[in-house]
Amino acid sequence: MGRQKAVVLLSGGLDSCVSATLAKSEGFDIFALTIDYGQRHKRELRSASAVAKSLGAKKHLVMKIDMAKIGGSALTDKKLRVPKSGVKPGIPITYVPARNLVFLSIAVSYAEAVGAARVYIGANSVDYSGYPDCRPEFIRAFSRAARLGTKAGVEVRGVRIIAPLQNLSKGDIVRLGAKSGAPMHLTWSCYEGGERACGKCDSCRLRLKGFEQAGAIDKIKYKI
Amino acid sequence: MGRQKAVVLLSGGLDSCVSATLAKSEGFDIFALTIDYGQRHKRELRSASAVAKSLGAKKHLVMKIDMAKIGGSALTDKKLRVPKSGVKPGIPITYVPARNLVFLSIAVSYAEAVGAARVYIGANSVDYSGYPDCRPEFIRAFSRAARLGTKAGVEVRGVRIIAPLQNLSKGDIVRLGAKSGAPMHLTWSCYEGGERACGKCDSCRLRLKGFEQAGAIDKIKYKI
Repeated sequence: MGRQKAVVLLSGGLDSCVSATLAKSEGFDIFALTIDYGQRHKRELRSASAVAKSLGAKKHLVMKIDMAKIGGSALTDKKLRVPKSGVKPGIPITYVPARNLVFLSIAVSYAEAVGAARVYIGANSVDYSGYPDCRPEFIRAFSRAARLGTKAGVEVRGVRIIAPLQNLSKGDIVRLGAKSGAPMHLTWSCYEGGERACGKCDSCRLRLKGFEQAGAIDKIKYKI
Repeated sequence: MGRQKAVVLLSGGLDSCVSATLAKSEGFDIFALTIDYGQRHKRELRSASAVAKSLGAKKHLVMKIDMAKIGGSALTDKKLRVPKSGVKPGIPITYVPARNLVFLSIAVSYAEAVGAARVYIGANSVDYSGYPDCRPEFIRAFSRAARLGTKAGVEVRGVRIIAPLQNLSKGDIVRLGAKSGAPMHLTWSCYEGGERACGKCDSCRLRLKGFEQAGAIDKIKYKI
């Protein structure tokens, strides 16, 4: 029997890069999965490929699903504007309806098809308290549904969902990434495309704060 | 306030047609959702459109997701043969890994975007006892995950998953369809494409048995 397999959700962002690196250090063979869901720019997809390659993933599957057709989010709907005035309380307009639910489901399907025992997701409930599908109680409930709804869950122990960053702050994540050798310089967090990050959107602000808290240097290029 | 909305999963098959008809008779405005997941033929998609039109759906969204790329099922993978190690009894090779998990997740995302209170699925655990993702305990666990993982679930009562055919035999389903005026003549069950159903695959056999049990006439055309 070879090494165990893990499906890792890779968005191209910082969190999923660190989460995938942890899966690798646990000794799993990495099956990377990126969901191309019609986000505003393709820059993240390039980052996801670069991270998958850097981690020596056995495979990198890119699944397309046009969530923009569903609507309801500033991240996929070009008529809604991405806010830049700072992080507001509540559920942000960048929330894509049930995104992690959809992503995890596809990941579980992939895990079942390749015989992977784990699905790693970079979901984080500290800085994304406004996203209901990042909450630990959601991850737990989903794990249970996944176990009951799969062949693997019926016949063997089933696919486990691992969200290793769940309770960490952005600063902790950057620290952990630096310690575990995560290729964070290949990631992309900015909600806008282009070659340099804007440094002003919620996602850039959080990232910059994280590097600052960790006392680490962010090697990507910013406009500011 | 207008009528309440329901997202109904429409595959083009018999069960989802009856399930959607029940949603309509409950008084919901119908938002039909069909997942084009790379199944071997497109005949079902035509049937899904015809059923949506016949039920007066407000919208019919067709979402593409190429589950054939994930592999693992005879329904989507043209190269797949029975594994040499032997398929365990119970779960057929036509099982698509975690299909209902993926379909329901997309349906919940759509429900959240349009503000629908219900998702109807034609899942049935009597004739499909081999499909883990048709079991009532899966549907229950998924409902809980969906409630916890959506904005709707945080802010209001959340999206409920309704599987009205869950405990019915195919005969019962046909009887219920006839009684509720479901446009069963527009549906397609055969695993093969073409203009006439083969009458020989598992799905055709089950359908024919259902009509026989219900003492009803199946108006679609068969080769046999």
